Amino acid sequence: MPLHEQDFPGALSPVAIFGPGLIGGSLAMALGRLSSAPEIRVFARNPGRAAAALGESVFCSSDPCEVARGASVVVFCTPVECMGSLARAIRDIPGPDAVVTDAGSVKEGPVRELEEIFGGRYVGAHPMAGSEQAGIEAARKDLFDGACCILTPTDVTATDALARVEKFWTGVGCRTLCLSASEHDRLVALASHLPHAVASILIETVGAEDPLALQLAGGGLRDSTRIAAGPPEMWAGIFHANRGRVVDALDQFLERAARFRGLVSQARPEEIAAFLASAKNWRDSL
Amino acid sequence: MPLHEQDFPGALSPVAIFGPGLIGGSLAMALGRLSSAPEIRVFARNPGRAAAALGESVFCSSDPCEVARGASVVVFCTPVECMGSLARAIRDIPGPDAVVTDAGSVKEGPVRELEEIFGGRYVGAHPMAGSEQAGIEAARKDLFDGACCILTPTDVTATDALARVEKFWTGVGCRTLCLSASEHDRLVALASHLPHAVASILIETVGAEDPLALQLAGGGLRDSTRIAAGPPEMWAGIFHANRGRVVDALDQFLERAARFRGLVSQARPEEIAAFLASAKNWRDSL
Repeated sequence: MPLHEQDFPGALSPVAIFGPGLIGGSLAMALGRLSSAPEIRVFARNPGRAAAALGESVFCSSDPCEVARGASVVVFCTPVECMGSLARAIRDIPGPDAVVTDAGSVKEGPVRELEEIFGGRYVGAHPMAGSEQAGIEAARKDLFDGACCILTPTDVTATDALARVEKFWTGVGCRTLCLSASEHDRLVALASHLPHAVASILIETVGAEDPLALQLAGGGLRDSTRIAAGPPEMWAGIFHANRGRVVDALDQFLERAARFRGLVSQARPEEIAAFLASAKNWRDSL
Repeated sequence: MPLHEQDFPGALSPVAIFGPGLIGGSLAMALGRLSSAPEIRVFARNPGRAAAALGESVFCSSDPCEVARGASVVVFCTPVECMGSLARAIRDIPGPDAVVTDAGSVKEGPVRELEEIFGGRYVGAHPMAGSEQAGIEAARKDLFDGACCILTPTDVTATDALARVEKFWTGVGCRTLCLSASEHDRLVALASHLPHAVASILIETVGAEDPLALQLAGGGLRDSTRIAAGPPEMWAGIFHANRGRVVDALDQFLERAARFRGLVSQARPEEIAAFLASAKNWRDSL
Protein backbone atom coordinates (compact mmCIF):
# COMPACT_ATOMS: atom_id res chain seq x y z
CA MET A 1 0.00 0.00 0.00
CA PRO A 2 1.96 3.03 -1.21
CA LEU A 3 1.92 6.12 0.97
CA HIS A 4 2.30 9.61 -0.38
CA GLU A 5 3.40 12.81 1.27
CA GLN A 6 0.10 14.49 0.45
CA ASP A 7 -1.46 12.19 3.07
CA PHE A 8 0.61 14.12 5.60
CA PRO A 9 0.47 17.80 4.79
CA GLY A 10 2.54 20.10 6.96
CA ALA A 11 -0.42 20.50 9.30
CA LEU A 12 0.06 16.90 10.53
CA SER A 13 3.73 17.31 11.50
CA PRO A 14 5.25 16.78 14.01
CA VAL A 15 3.57 13.63 15.37
CA ALA A 16 3.90 12.87 19.11
CA ILE A 17 3.44 9.20 20.03
CA PHE A 18 2.91 8.22 23.66
CA GLY A 19 3.85 4.63 24.45
CA PRO A 20 6.24 2.80 22.12
CA GLY A 21 4.91 -0.76 22.37
CA LEU A 22 3.87 -2.91 19.45
CA ILE A 23 1.31 -0.33 18.28
CA GLY A 24 3.21 2.90 19.00
CA GLY A 25 6.46 1.49 17.60
CA SER A 26 4.75 0.22 14.45
CA LEU A 27 3.09 3.62 14.04
CA ALA A 28 6.46 5.41 14.20
CA MET A 29 7.83 2.96 11.61
CA ALA A 30 4.79 3.35 9.32
CA LEU A 31 5.19 7.15 9.48
CA GLY A 32 8.94 6.83 8.95
CA ARG A 33 8.54 5.01 5.64
CA LEU A 34 6.67 7.95 4.07
CA SER A 35 8.62 9.47 1.22
CA SER A 36 8.40 12.76 3.09
CA ALA A 37 8.10 11.51 6.65
CA PRO A 38 6.77 13.84 9.36
CA GLU A 39 8.91 14.66 12.36
CA ILE A 40 8.25 11.89 14.88
CA ARG A 41 8.54 12.28 18.67
CA VAL A 42 8.07 9.37 21.04
CA PHE A 43 7.39 9.33 24.77
CA ALA A 44 8.84 6.21 26.41
CA ARG A 45 9.66 5.30 30.00
CA ASN A 46 12.86 3.81 28.58
CA PRO A 47 13.84 6.19 25.74
CA GLY A 48 17.12 4.33 25.04
CA ARG A 49 15.28 1.12 24.20
CA ALA A 50 12.81 2.97 21.98
CA ALA A 51 15.59 4.87 20.20
CA ALA A 52 17.51 1.64 19.58
CA ALA A 53 14.47 0.14 17.85
CA LEU A 54 13.36 3.22 15.93
CA GLY A 55 16.64 4.71 14.75
CA GLU A 56 18.08 8.15 15.26
CA SER A 57 15.62 10.03 13.06
CA VAL A 58 13.03 9.58 15.84
CA PHE A 59 13.24 11.79 18.93
CA CYS A 60 12.65 9.70 22.08
CA SER A 61 12.21 11.12 25.57
CA SER A 62 10.77 10.21 28.95
CA ASP A 63 9.51 13.79 29.43
CA PRO A 64 5.90 13.89 28.18
CA CYS A 65 5.83 17.69 27.88
CA GLU A 66 8.99 17.77 25.78
CA VAL A 67 7.45 15.23 23.41
CA ALA A 68 4.10 17.02 23.16
CA ARG A 69 5.52 20.52 22.60
CA GLY A 70 4.69 21.83 19.14
CA ALA A 71 2.98 18.60 18.06
CA SER A 72 0.29 18.74 15.37
CA VAL A 73 -0.91 15.20 16.08
CA VAL A 74 -0.79 13.54 19.50
CA VAL A 75 -1.43 9.77 19.61
CA PHE A 76 -1.86 7.80 22.84
CA CYS A 77 -0.71 4.20 22.36
CA THR A 78 -0.29 3.29 26.03
CA PRO A 79 -2.48 0.78 27.88
CA VAL A 80 -5.96 2.34 28.28
CA GLU A 81 -5.61 2.71 32.04
CA CYS A 82 -2.54 4.99 31.64
CA MET A 83 -3.99 7.41 29.09
CA GLY A 84 -5.85 9.71 31.46
CA SER A 85 -2.91 10.63 33.68
CA LEU A 86 -0.57 11.19 30.73
CA ALA A 87 -3.20 13.30 29.00
CA ARG A 88 -3.66 15.46 32.09
CA ALA A 89 0.14 15.91 32.32
CA ILE A 90 0.35 17.41 28.81
CA ARG A 91 -3.12 18.96 28.48
CA ASP A 92 -1.96 22.53 27.84
CA ILE A 93 1.19 21.73 25.83
CA PRO A 94 0.01 21.02 22.26
CA GLY A 95 -1.03 24.18 20.39
CA PRO A 96 -4.70 24.95 19.67
CA ASP A 97 -4.39 23.50 16.16
CA ALA A 98 -3.20 20.10 17.36
CA VAL A 99 -5.48 17.07 17.02
CA VAL A 100 -5.40 14.19 19.51
CA THR A 101 -6.20 10.52 18.93
CA ASP A 102 -5.41 7.18 20.54
CA ALA A 103 -5.15 3.46 19.77
CA GLY A 104 -6.95 2.05 22.79
CA SER A 105 -8.73 -1.32 22.50
CA VAL A 106 -11.66 -0.03 24.57
CA LYS A 107 -13.34 3.28 23.81
CA GLU A 108 -16.19 4.31 26.13
CA GLY A 109 -13.98 5.15 29.13
CA PRO A 110 -11.03 6.69 27.23
CA VAL A 111 -13.31 8.74 24.97
CA ARG A 112 -15.12 10.22 27.98
CA GLU A 113 -11.82 10.92 29.76
CA LEU A 114 -9.82 12.30 26.80
CA GLU A 115 -12.71 14.35 25.42
CA GLU A 116 -13.10 15.99 28.80
CA ILE A 117 -9.43 16.99 28.61
CA PHE A 118 -9.02 17.90 24.92
CA GLY A 119 -12.58 18.69 23.84
CA GLY A 120 -13.57 18.57 20.17
CA ARG A 121 -10.05 18.14 18.82
CA TYR A 122 -9.83 14.62 20.27
CA VAL A 123 -11.07 11.72 18.09
CA GLY A 124 -10.99 8.19 19.54
CA ALA A 125 -9.50 5.49 17.34
CA HIS A 126 -8.79 1.77 17.48
CA PRO A 127 -6.69 0.22 14.73
CA MET A 128 -7.65 -3.48 14.70
CA ALA A 129 -4.09 -4.67 14.26
CA GLY A 130 -1.85 -6.51 16.62
CA SER A 131 -0.21 -9.80 17.30
CA GLU A 132 0.44 -12.12 20.21
CA GLN A 133 3.83 -10.45 20.51
CA ALA A 134 4.30 -7.34 22.59
CA GLY A 135 6.81 -4.52 22.84
CA ILE A 136 8.64 -2.39 20.37
CA GLU A 137 10.88 -5.29 19.33
CA ALA A 138 7.82 -6.85 17.63
CA ALA A 139 6.89 -3.58 15.85
CA ARG A 140 6.54 -3.68 12.05
CA LYS A 141 6.17 -0.85 9.56
CA ASP A 142 3.39 -2.75 7.73
CA LEU A 143 1.30 -3.65 10.82
CA PHE A 144 -1.56 -1.33 9.81
CA ASP A 145 -1.67 -2.15 6.09
CA GLY A 146 -5.29 -3.01 5.30
CA ALA A 147 -6.36 -3.10 8.97
CA CYS A 148 -9.73 -1.69 9.97
CA CYS A 149 -9.33 1.42 12.17
CA ILE A 150 -12.52 2.28 14.03
CA LEU A 151 -13.04 6.00 14.75
CA THR A 152 -15.44 7.05 17.51
CA PRO A 153 -16.43 10.71 16.98
CA THR A 154 -19.09 12.24 19.25
CA ASP A 155 -21.40 15.27 19.11
CA VAL A 156 -18.52 17.28 20.55
CA THR A 157 -15.95 16.28 17.88
CA ALA A 158 -14.84 19.09 15.56
CA THR A 159 -15.46 18.26 11.88
CA ASP A 160 -11.96 19.25 10.78
CA ALA A 161 -10.38 17.24 13.62
CA LEU A 162 -12.26 14.14 12.43
CA ALA A 163 -11.06 14.74 8.85
CA ARG A 164 -7.45 15.16 9.93
CA VAL A 165 -7.46 12.14 12.26
CA GLU A 166 -9.06 10.02 9.54
CA LYS A 167 -6.35 11.15 7.08
CA PHE A 168 -3.72 10.28 9.68
CA TRP A 169 -4.88 6.66 10.10
CA THR A 170 -5.50 6.06 6.39
CA GLY A 171 -2.06 7.53 5.74
CA VAL A 172 -0.41 4.73 7.74
CA GLY A 173 -2.35 2.07 5.83
CA CYS A 174 -5.71 1.62 7.61
CA ARG A 175 -9.23 1.69 6.25
CA THR A 176 -11.53 3.57 8.64
CA LEU A 177 -15.05 3.06 9.97
CA CYS A 178 -16.97 5.40 12.30
CA LEU A 179 -18.93 3.93 15.22
CA SER A 180 -20.11 5.22 18.57
CA ALA A 181 -17.80 4.32 21.45
CA SER A 182 -20.51 2.14 22.94
CA GLU A 183 -21.12 0.28 19.67
CA HIS A 184 -17.36 -0.15 19.28
CA ASP A 185 -17.03 -1.69 22.72
CA ARG A 186 -19.88 -4.12 22.09
CA LEU A 187 -18.47 -5.19 18.71
CA VAL A 188 -14.85 -5.62 19.79
CA ALA A 189 -16.01 -7.63 22.80
CA LEU A 190 -17.27 -10.11 20.18
CA ALA A 191 -14.57 -9.74 17.50
CA SER A 192 -11.49 -9.45 19.68
CA HIS A 193 -11.98 -9.80 23.45
CA LEU A 194 -14.13 -12.95 23.36
CA PRO A 195 -11.68 -14.79 21.02
CA HIS A 196 -8.82 -13.89 23.35
CA ALA A 197 -10.69 -15.12 26.43
CA VAL A 198 -11.76 -18.33 24.68
CA ALA A 199 -8.24 -19.08 23.40
CA SER A 200 -6.84 -18.58 26.92
CA ILE A 201 -9.50 -20.74 28.57
CA LEU A 202 -8.95 -23.43 25.93
CA ILE A 203 -5.18 -23.74 26.30
CA GLU A 204 -5.47 -23.51 30.10
CA THR A 205 -7.96 -26.41 30.04
CA VAL A 206 -5.84 -28.62 27.78
CA GLY A 207 -2.57 -27.92 29.62
CA ALA A 208 -3.97 -28.25 33.13
CA GLU A 209 -6.01 -31.39 32.39
CA ASP A 210 -3.13 -33.25 30.73
CA PRO A 211 0.14 -31.74 29.45
CA LEU A 212 0.64 -34.85 27.30
CA ALA A 213 -2.25 -33.60 25.15
CA LEU A 214 -0.08 -30.59 24.21
CA GLN A 215 2.51 -32.95 22.76
CA LEU A 216 -0.05 -34.59 20.50
CA ALA A 217 -1.46 -31.33 19.25
CA GLY A 218 -1.51 -30.59 15.54
CA GLY A 219 -1.92 -27.24 13.83
CA GLY A 220 -5.52 -26.89 15.03
CA LEU A 221 -4.78 -26.33 18.71
CA ARG A 222 -1.73 -24.27 17.78
CA ASP A 223 -3.62 -21.81 15.57
CA SER A 224 -6.70 -21.62 17.75
CA THR A 225 -4.66 -20.59 20.81
CA ARG A 226 -1.98 -18.37 19.23
CA ILE A 227 -3.46 -15.18 20.68
CA ALA A 228 -3.35 -16.65 24.21
CA ALA A 229 0.40 -15.94 24.15
CA GLY A 230 -0.35 -12.20 24.28
CA PRO A 231 0.72 -10.04 27.24
CA PRO A 232 -1.43 -10.98 30.30
CA GLU A 233 -1.28 -7.60 32.06
CA MET A 234 -2.34 -5.69 28.98
CA TRP A 235 -5.21 -8.07 28.27
CA ALA A 236 -6.35 -8.08 31.89
CA GLY A 237 -6.57 -4.28 31.57
CA ILE A 238 -8.69 -4.60 28.42
CA PHE A 239 -11.06 -7.18 29.95
CA HIS A 240 -11.41 -5.05 33.05
CA ALA A 241 -12.03 -1.82 31.13
CA ASN A 242 -14.70 -3.47 28.93
CA ARG A 243 -16.02 -5.91 31.53
CA GLY A 244 -19.75 -5.36 31.01
CA ARG A 245 -19.52 -6.10 27.28
CA VAL A 246 -17.06 -8.96 27.80
CA VAL A 247 -19.40 -10.64 30.29
CA ASP A 248 -22.27 -10.26 27.79
CA ALA A 249 -20.16 -11.83 25.01
CA LEU A 250 -19.04 -14.66 27.31
CA ASP A 251 -22.66 -15.33 28.25
CA GLN A 252 -23.66 -15.46 24.57
CA PHE A 253 -20.80 -17.90 23.97
CA LEU A 254 -21.60 -20.02 27.04
CA GLU A 255 -25.24 -20.32 26.06
CA ARG A 256 -24.25 -21.83 22.69
CA ALA A 257 -21.55 -23.98 24.29
CA ALA A 258 -24.16 -25.48 26.64
CA ARG A 259 -26.42 -26.15 23.65
CA PHE A 260 -23.59 -27.84 21.74
CA ARG A 261 -22.67 -29.94 24.79
CA GLY A 262 -26.31 -31.03 25.02
CA LEU A 263 -26.36 -32.16 21.38
CA VAL A 264 -23.22 -34.25 21.89
CA SER A 265 -24.32 -35.80 25.18
CA GLN A 266 -27.79 -36.58 23.79
CA ALA A 267 -26.20 -38.31 20.76
CA ARG A 268 -27.82 -36.14 18.09
CA PRO A 269 -25.29 -36.25 15.21
CA GLU A 270 -27.59 -34.58 12.63
CA GLU A 271 -28.06 -31.58 14.88
CA ILE A 272 -24.32 -31.47 15.67
CA ALA A 273 -23.65 -31.40 11.91
CA ALA A 274 -26.20 -28.59 11.45
CA PHE A 275 -24.53 -26.56 14.23
CA LEU A 276 -21.09 -27.10 12.66
CA ALA A 277 -22.41 -26.25 9.18
CA SER A 278 -23.76 -22.92 10.43
CA ALA A 279 -20.42 -22.17 12.12
CA LYS A 280 -18.55 -23.11 8.94
CA ASN A 281 -20.77 -20.71 6.96
CA TRP A 282 -19.82 -17.82 9.22
CA ARG A 283 -16.15 -18.79 9.08
CA ASP A 284 -16.18 -19.07 5.29
CA SER A 285 -17.62 -15.53 5.12
CA LEU A 286 -14.69 -14.06 7.07
CA MET B 1 12.41 -35.43 5.85
CA PRO B 2 14.07 -37.84 3.41
CA LEU B 3 12.45 -41.21 2.85
CA HIS B 4 14.39 -44.27 1.82
CA GLU B 5 13.31 -47.45 0.13
CA GLN B 6 14.53 -49.50 3.07
CA ASP B 7 11.60 -48.04 5.01
CA PHE B 8 9.40 -50.01 2.63
CA PRO B 9 10.85 -53.45 2.06
CA GLY B 10 8.97 -55.74 -0.32
CA ALA B 11 6.91 -57.03 2.58
CA LEU B 12 5.06 -53.69 2.76
CA SER B 13 4.02 -53.64 -0.91
CA PRO B 14 1.38 -53.30 -2.30
CA VAL B 15 -0.43 -50.81 -0.09
CA ALA B 16 -4.25 -50.69 -0.25
CA ILE B 17 -5.80 -47.38 0.85
CA PHE B 18 -9.53 -47.19 1.56
CA GLY B 19 -10.96 -43.70 1.29
CA PRO B 20 -9.08 -41.07 -0.72
CA GLY B 21 -9.93 -37.93 1.21
CA LEU B 22 -7.38 -35.50 2.61
CA ILE B 23 -5.68 -38.24 4.66
CA GLY B 24 -5.89 -41.15 2.22
CA GLY B 25 -4.89 -38.99 -0.73
CA SER B 26 -1.95 -37.47 1.17
CA LEU B 27 -0.89 -40.97 2.18
CA ALA B 28 -0.84 -42.14 -1.45
CA MET B 29 1.22 -39.06 -2.36
CA ALA B 30 3.65 -39.58 0.54
CA LEU B 31 4.16 -43.19 -0.54
CA GLY B 32 4.49 -42.13 -4.18
CA ARG B 33 7.43 -39.84 -3.47
CA LEU B 34 9.56 -42.73 -2.17
CA SER B 35 12.56 -43.33 -4.41
CA SER B 36 11.31 -46.89 -4.76
CA ALA B 37 7.59 -46.41 -4.20
CA PRO B 38 5.40 -49.37 -3.29
CA GLU B 39 2.51 -50.34 -5.53
CA ILE B 40 -0.44 -48.22 -4.38
CA ARG B 41 -4.12 -49.23 -4.72
CA VAL B 42 -6.93 -46.92 -3.71
CA PHE B 43 -10.58 -47.67 -3.03
CA ALA B 44 -12.79 -44.70 -3.92
CA ARG B 45 -16.50 -44.34 -4.53
CA ASN B 46 -15.49 -42.06 -7.41
CA PRO B 47 -12.32 -43.67 -8.81
CA GLY B 48 -12.06 -41.19 -11.69
CA ARG B 49 -11.75 -38.24 -9.32
CA ALA B 50 -9.14 -40.07 -7.24
CA ALA B 51 -7.15 -41.09 -10.31
CA ALA B 52 -7.19 -37.52 -11.60
CA ALA B 53 -5.65 -36.29 -8.36
CA LEU B 54 -3.18 -39.13 -7.85
CA GLY B 55 -1.88 -39.79 -11.34
CA GLU B 56 -1.80 -42.95 -13.37
CA SER B 57 0.78 -44.81 -11.29
CA VAL B 58 -1.95 -45.32 -8.65
CA PHE B 59 -4.62 -47.98 -9.25
CA CYS B 60 -8.05 -46.62 -8.27
CA SER B 61 -11.22 -48.69 -8.09
CA SER B 62 -14.67 -48.69 -6.52
CA ASP B 63 -14.45 -52.43 -5.92
CA PRO B 64 -13.06 -52.96 -2.39
CA CYS B 65 -12.11 -56.59 -3.00
CA GLU B 66 -10.14 -55.75 -6.14
CA VAL B 67 -8.21 -53.12 -4.16
CA ALA B 68 -7.53 -55.40 -1.20
CA ARG B 69 -6.42 -58.43 -3.24
CA GLY B 70 -2.74 -59.23 -2.66
CA ALA B 71 -2.18 -56.19 -0.39
CA SER B 72 0.59 -56.31 2.21
CA VAL B 73 -0.69 -53.24 4.03
CA VAL B 74 -4.34 -52.23 4.24
CA VAL B 75 -5.11 -48.72 5.55
CA PHE B 76 -8.62 -47.48 6.33
CA CYS B 77 -8.83 -43.71 5.85
CA THR B 78 -12.62 -43.41 5.61
CA PRO B 79 -14.81 -41.71 8.24
CA VAL B 80 -14.79 -43.90 11.36
CA GLU B 81 -18.45 -44.87 10.96
CA CYS B 82 -17.76 -46.44 7.53
CA MET B 83 -14.76 -48.59 8.50
CA GLY B 84 -16.63 -51.59 9.93
CA SER B 85 -18.75 -52.34 6.88
CA LEU B 86 -15.82 -51.94 4.46
CA ALA B 87 -13.66 -54.14 6.67
CA ARG B 88 -16.30 -56.86 6.73
CA ALA B 89 -16.58 -56.67 2.93
CA ILE B 90 -12.88 -57.45 2.44
CA ARG B 91 -12.17 -59.51 5.58
CA ASP B 92 -10.93 -62.65 3.78
CA ILE B 93 -9.23 -60.95 0.82
CA PRO B 94 -5.79 -59.82 2.10
CA GLY B 95 -3.35 -62.71 2.53
CA PRO B 96 -2.38 -64.00 6.00
CA ASP B 97 0.82 -61.90 5.96
CA ALA B 98 -1.00 -58.61 5.41
CA VAL B 99 -1.14 -56.02 8.19
CA VAL B 100 -4.08 -53.68 8.65
CA THR B 101 -4.12 -50.16 10.09
CA ASP B 102 -6.34 -47.08 9.93
CA ALA B 103 -6.24 -43.31 10.34
CA GLY B 104 -9.39 -42.80 12.38
CA SER B 105 -9.64 -39.81 14.73
CA VAL B 106 -11.34 -41.95 17.38
CA LYS B 107 -9.94 -45.29 18.43
CA GLU B 108 -11.96 -47.23 21.05
CA GLY B 109 -14.84 -48.18 18.73
CA PRO B 110 -12.81 -48.81 15.55
CA VAL B 111 -10.14 -50.80 17.41
CA ARG B 112 -12.78 -53.08 18.93
CA GLU B 113 -14.51 -53.51 15.59
CA LEU B 114 -11.44 -53.96 13.34
CA GLU B 115 -9.60 -56.20 15.80
CA GLU B 116 -12.63 -58.46 15.91
CA ILE B 117 -12.39 -58.75 12.12
CA PHE B 118 -8.62 -58.88 11.55
CA GLY B 119 -7.29 -60.10 14.91
CA GLY B 120 -3.64 -59.48 15.89
CA ARG B 121 -2.55 -58.19 12.49
CA TYR B 122 -4.60 -55.01 12.93
CA VAL B 123 -2.92 -52.03 14.64
CA GLY B 124 -4.97 -48.88 15.21
CA ALA B 125 -3.34 -45.59 14.24
CA HIS B 126 -4.16 -41.90 14.21
CA PRO B 127 -1.80 -39.53 12.42
CA MET B 128 -2.38 -36.10 14.02
CA ALA B 129 -2.30 -34.26 10.73
CA GLY B 130 -5.04 -32.48 8.87
CA SER B 131 -6.34 -29.15 7.85
CA GLU B 132 -9.63 -27.31 7.64
CA GLN B 133 -9.76 -28.39 4.03
CA ALA B 134 -11.26 -31.71 3.00
CA GLY B 135 -11.10 -34.03 0.03
CA ILE B 136 -8.36 -35.34 -2.19
CA GLU B 137 -7.94 -31.93 -3.86
CA ALA B 138 -6.44 -30.67 -0.56
CA ALA B 139 -4.08 -33.66 -0.25
CA ARG B 140 -0.34 -32.95 0.11
CA LYS B 141 2.61 -35.29 -0.06
CA ASP B 142 4.17 -33.63 3.01
CA LEU B 143 1.06 -33.67 5.23
CA PHE B 144 2.57 -36.22 7.63
CA ASP B 145 6.09 -34.79 7.88
CA GLY B 146 6.85 -34.47 11.58
CA ALA B 147 3.27 -35.24 12.67
CA CYS B 148 2.66 -37.38 15.72
CA CYS B 149 1.03 -40.71 14.78
CA ILE B 150 -0.54 -42.45 17.76
CA LEU B 151 -0.58 -46.25 17.62
CA THR B 152 -3.01 -48.19 19.79
CA PRO B 153 -1.83 -51.81 20.10
CA THR B 154 -3.70 -54.17 22.45
CA ASP B 155 -2.92 -57.48 24.17
CA VAL B 156 -4.08 -59.17 20.99
CA THR B 157 -1.74 -57.26 18.64
CA ALA B 158 1.01 -59.36 17.02
CA THR B 159 4.50 -58.02 17.76
CA ASP B 160 5.64 -58.14 14.14
CA ALA B 161 2.43 -56.44 12.95
CA LEU B 162 3.11 -53.57 15.36
CA ALA B 163 6.70 -53.27 14.07
CA ARG B 164 5.58 -53.25 10.42
CA VAL B 165 2.76 -50.75 11.00
CA GLU B 166 5.12 -48.49 12.96
CA LYS B 167 7.62 -48.65 10.08
CA PHE B 168 4.83 -47.84 7.65
CA TRP B 169 3.83 -44.62 9.46
CA THR B 170 7.39 -43.47 10.15
CA GLY B 171 8.13 -44.16 6.48
CA VAL B 172 5.63 -41.51 5.39
CA GLY B 173 7.12 -38.95 7.78
CA CYS B 174 5.40 -39.43 11.17
CA ARG B 175 6.88 -39.89 14.61
CA THR B 176 4.95 -42.54 16.53
CA LEU B 177 3.67 -42.91 20.09
CA CYS B 178 1.89 -45.93 21.58
CA LEU B 179 -1.18 -45.38 23.78
CA SER B 180 -4.20 -47.44 24.72
CA ALA B 181 -7.28 -46.67 22.60
CA SER B 182 -9.04 -45.31 25.68
CA GLU B 183 -6.12 -43.04 26.60
CA HIS B 184 -5.94 -41.89 22.97
CA ASP B 185 -9.62 -40.95 22.94
CA ARG B 186 -9.32 -38.99 26.18
CA LEU B 187 -6.24 -37.10 24.97
CA VAL B 188 -7.51 -36.24 21.49
CA ALA B 189 -10.79 -35.06 23.00
CA LEU B 190 -8.59 -32.40 24.67
CA ALA B 191 -5.99 -31.81 21.96
CA SER B 192 -8.20 -31.93 18.87
CA HIS B 193 -11.97 -32.36 19.42
CA LEU B 194 -12.33 -29.67 22.11
CA PRO B 195 -10.45 -27.04 20.02
CA HIS B 196 -12.69 -27.82 17.06
CA ALA B 197 -15.86 -27.52 19.15
CA VAL B 198 -14.67 -24.28 20.76
CA ALA B 199 -13.68 -22.70 17.43
CA SER B 200 -17.10 -23.57 15.98
CA ILE B 201 -19.01 -22.25 19.00
CA LEU B 202 -16.90 -19.08 18.93
CA ILE B 203 -17.48 -18.17 15.28
CA GLU B 204 -21.17 -19.15 15.54
CA THR B 205 -21.51 -16.76 18.51
CA VAL B 206 -19.76 -13.84 16.82
CA GLY B 207 -21.56 -14.27 13.49
CA ALA B 208 -25.01 -14.85 14.93
CA GLU B 209 -24.77 -12.03 17.50
CA ASP B 210 -23.57 -9.42 14.99
CA PRO B 211 -22.17 -10.07 11.51
CA LEU B 212 -20.62 -6.59 11.55
CA ALA B 213 -18.16 -7.92 14.16
CA LEU B 214 -16.80 -10.28 11.49
CA GLN B 215 -15.89 -7.28 9.34
CA LEU B 216 -13.87 -5.73 12.15
CA ALA B 217 -11.99 -8.90 12.94
CA GLY B 218 -8.22 -8.97 12.85
CA GLY B 219 -5.94 -11.97 12.64
CA GLY B 220 -6.93 -13.16 16.13
CA LEU B 221 -10.48 -14.24 15.31
CA ARG B 222 -9.33 -15.50 11.94
CA ASP B 223 -6.63 -17.83 13.34
CA SER B 224 -8.62 -18.96 16.35
CA THR B 225 -11.53 -20.14 14.17
CA ARG B 226 -9.69 -21.52 11.12
CA ILE B 227 -10.50 -25.13 12.01
CA ALA B 228 -14.23 -24.34 12.19
CA ALA B 229 -14.18 -24.34 8.37
CA GLY B 230 -13.62 -28.13 8.45
CA PRO B 231 -16.19 -30.55 7.01
CA PRO B 232 -19.30 -30.56 9.29
CA GLU B 233 -20.43 -34.14 8.56
CA MET B 234 -17.01 -35.62 9.26
CA TRP B 235 -16.64 -33.70 12.50
CA ALA B 236 -20.17 -34.55 13.63
CA GLY B 237 -19.18 -38.22 13.17
CA ILE B 238 -16.04 -37.70 15.29
CA PHE B 239 -17.93 -35.89 18.09
CA HIS B 240 -20.58 -38.58 18.06
CA ALA B 241 -18.09 -41.46 18.08
CA ASN B 242 -16.14 -39.94 20.99
CA ARG B 243 -19.08 -38.28 22.75
CA GLY B 244 -18.31 -39.38 26.31
CA ARG B 245 -14.78 -37.95 26.19
CA VAL B 246 -15.90 -34.85 24.29
CA VAL B 247 -18.56 -34.08 26.91
CA ASP B 248 -15.92 -34.51 29.66
CA ALA B 249 -13.55 -32.13 27.86
CA LEU B 250 -16.34 -29.59 27.27
CA ASP B 251 -17.24 -29.75 30.97
CA GLN B 252 -13.61 -29.13 31.94
CA PHE B 253 -13.56 -26.16 29.56
CA LEU B 254 -16.93 -24.81 30.74
CA GLU B 255 -15.87 -24.98 34.38
CA ARG B 256 -12.86 -22.75 33.64
CA ALA B 257 -14.93 -20.48 31.39
CA ALA B 258 -17.38 -19.91 34.23
CA ARG B 259 -14.48 -19.12 36.56
CA PHE B 260 -13.01 -16.64 34.08
CA ARG B 261 -16.42 -15.01 33.56
CA GLY B 262 -16.69 -14.64 37.34
CA LEU B 263 -13.30 -12.88 37.58
CA VAL B 264 -14.31 -10.40 34.87
CA SER B 265 -17.78 -9.70 36.26
CA GLN B 266 -16.42 -9.29 39.80
CA ALA B 267 -13.80 -6.78 38.54
CA ARG B 268 -10.73 -8.68 39.73
CA PRO B 269 -8.01 -7.62 37.23
CA GLU B 270 -5.11 -9.17 39.19
CA GLU B 271 -6.76 -12.58 39.11
CA ILE B 272 -7.66 -12.15 35.43
CA ALA B 273 -3.97 -11.42 34.75
CA ALA B 274 -2.93 -14.52 36.74
CA PHE B 275 -5.36 -16.69 34.75
CA LEU B 276 -4.04 -15.28 31.46
CA ALA B 277 -0.42 -15.70 32.58
CA SER B 278 -1.00 -19.38 33.32
CA ALA B 279 -2.67 -19.84 29.92
CA LYS B 280 0.23 -18.02 28.24
CA ASN B 281 2.67 -20.37 29.97
CA TRP B 282 0.93 -23.42 28.52
CA ARG B 283 0.77 -21.80 25.08
CA ASP B 284 4.45 -20.86 25.15
CA SER B 285 5.28 -24.51 25.92
CA LEU B 286 3.51 -25.75 22.76
